[in-house]
Amino acid sequence: MKATIERAVLLKSLGHVQSVVERRNTIPILSNVLIEAVEGGGIKLMATDLDLQIVETVEAQVEQAGATTVSAHTLFDIVRKLPEGSQVSLEAAEGKMAVNAGRARFNLSTLPRDDFPVIAEGDLPTVFEIPAATLREIVDKTRFAISTEETRYYLNGIFFHVTDDDQPVLKAAATDGHRLARFTLPRPDGAEGMPDVIIPRKCIAELRKMLDELDGTVEIALSDSKVRFGLGTAVMTSKLIDGTFPDYNRVIPTGNDKLLKIDPRSFEEGVDRVATIATEKTRAVKMALDTDKITLSVTSPENGTASEEVAGQYGSDGFEIGFNARYLLDILGQVQGDAIEVHLADAAAPTLIRENDKASALYVLMPMRV
Amino acid sequence: MKATIERAVLLKSLGHVQSVVERRNTIPILSNVLIEAVEGGGIKLMATDLDLQIVETVEAQVEQAGATTVSAHTLFDIVRKLPEGSQVSLEAAEGKMAVNAGRARFNLSTLPRDDFPVIAEGDLPTVFEIPAATLREIVDKTRFAISTEETRYYLNGIFFHVTDDDQPVLKAAATDGHRLARFTLPRPDGAEGMPDVIIPRKCIAELRKMLDELDGTVEIALSDSKVRFGLGTAVMTSKLIDGTFPDYNRVIPTGNDKLLKIDPRSFEEGVDRVATIATEKTRAVKMALDTDKITLSVTSPENGTASEEVAGQYGSDGFEIGFNARYLLDILGQVQGDAIEVHLADAAAPTLIRENDKASALYVLMPMRV
Repeated sequence: MKATIERAVLLKSLGHVQSVVERRNTIPILSNVLIEAVEGGGIKLMATDLDLQIVETVEAQVEQAGATTVSAHTLFDIVRKLPEGSQVSLEAAEGKMAVNAGRARFNLSTLPRDDFPVIAEGDLPTVFEIPAATLREIVDKTRFAISTEETRYYLNGIFFHVTDDDQPVLKAAATDGHRLARFTLPRPDGAEGMPDVIIPRKCIAELRKMLDELDGTVEIALSDSKVRFGLGTAVMTSKLIDGTFPDYNRVIPTGNDKLLKIDPRSFEEGVDRVATIATEKTRAVKMALDTDKITLSVTSPENGTASEEVAGQYGSDGFEIGFNARYLLDILGQVQGDAIEVHLADAAAPTLIRENDKASALYVLMPMRV
Repeated sequence: MKATIERAVLLKSLGHVQSVVERRNTIPILSNVLIEAVEGGGIKLMATDLDLQIVETVEAQVEQAGATTVSAHTLFDIVRKLPEGSQVSLEAAEGKMAVNAGRARFNLSTLPRDDFPVIAEGDLPTVFEIPAATLREIVDKTRFAISTEETRYYLNGIFFHVTDDDQPVLKAAATDGHRLARFTLPRPDGAEGMPDVIIPRKCIAELRKMLDELDGTVEIALSDSKVRFGLGTAVMTSKLIDGTFPDYNRVIPTGNDKLLKIDPRSFEEGVDRVATIATEKTRAVKMALDTDKITLSVTSPENGTASEEVAGQYGSDGFEIGFNARYLLDILGQVQGDAIEVHLADAAAPTLIRENDKASALYVLMPMRV
């Protein structure tokens, strides 16, 4: 293998793929990136953790086709430190890969390309497209609710499924049992008959990073065990979580009869301020509802008390309810508009939060005893 | 105690003093900041860890003089989150301090001001001034060499002493046994007869932060056990390290007969690049000297090899010497000029690095076997 590539191009692409590689690996080749030079076809970079793989194809001058694998983090660190604007020559021979740029010469240990594991995609019968901007929004408005409890592995991702409500829709949902976030969009062409899938947290995180730099649309292809994202020059393939996502519709309250309308920014700032003195463990904030105002308060045996009044529209009976401040802030942080609706029932019932009944995003929050 | 203060003023000052407070304290009052409102004299904020204390006086409207103590980190976090431009009212009564701003109300637990420990300065007979910019330079060019080995506590700071060389000078030196950094300046008026002092690492770190915002001069007052820095509206007092700094002059080589002149930037970048593949533990870089060039190289059993040629002026016999890349980079990072002198003897001898024989800063680096 022999090829020359611009440092900036190599750096950007390595930045994408090396991010998949775990810092610690018991299987040595999983630390490596596969570099494949294709005659007239540029260079293909590939990294995997056996559950998730990214392949990116970049322009390069290929003098001799071939492939090898070298440590992804080491190569990334080297390329990062090479002079800006330099041309990087890669040449693999006899169990080593030479990396030369300017006066710097590296000769890196390699592992055979044939040992590099590739995720077998199999057949991916469902294929549809989503604008990158929409996919960013779906991820941002749901991922914070993904559970980190490994025992509830079926909650460690975002659940995507299609359903017929008034019209055919695609829904994305995540929950950790304390809060639920759901995003709904019109069903994209091609998504009809798609299997229910749970896309794992790490795939979502890597996808989100790639979406930062992407305009246009993302091609999504999936079966009931794999998903593939076409992201410009990169292709990301992930195994899906093999489990059953709970029927989350049951926890979305429909009969909450007390409505608070409030400015999400003052609400957010008030919660953030009073939560300053909350103990790390509970982070509980009490919300006392009265006619057209709420009073947020926290009592900490250690630090003292905090309270703040926030104006809002509220006409039902006054009562008190408690929430985890972190969870409230996660939700409020995703609201762009200047008003939200908080639908309450009582101090023990799940509370529904949304911008309005047309909003794509909907949140359910379980109260805490305070 | 009752006073009103601008949020921005309180925030800045709390930022200074809370930084002294350790995150974990077995003595509860050490988590607190002392707040003292002086009739017509603003507010005095004070924090300590028993070895180091900062007192800062800021403008405030004092309605009722008095003092109390509250958690420094909690108060800092609260003030950080208060709306920009707000007026903060502080009122202490009955074991609590009320903090009010806008619609936010906090009532914080306090501890009695009389329990707050104050470092007794005693007599500080030596008093002199140093421009803040010079003090910044002294700290930057020496602190990286401070030892972190707690057993060699007498190396855990910067050693300041006056001496008569060709002219009276003040010298600052730090070493960890592997490298030495020394900064020399003309002896300031008032520093004659000053005792040798070792200023501890934490005091240096806090001092450096304060110097970021300071112009003008710093007043330094010291005895053989305490030092006090007058830093504008703030006063920092620290205990000194009670130990004897080794006679470091013995390790500064005077007979090194091989001279390399080199551009510090190409040298630094070359070392940084080849060190990418060095193992975390040793970080050893080999330097092969030849007529008017050096070749930097690293061999890692795990990663492979790296090498880079850097041009320089060198006319003595060729030889090879090894250094810890981290230590070399620490020194090169402090050089602003476009040339440095590296004075070498052989592969086992301490090497001297400086910009030239007029430079205030001088570095000694022990070689490594490679």
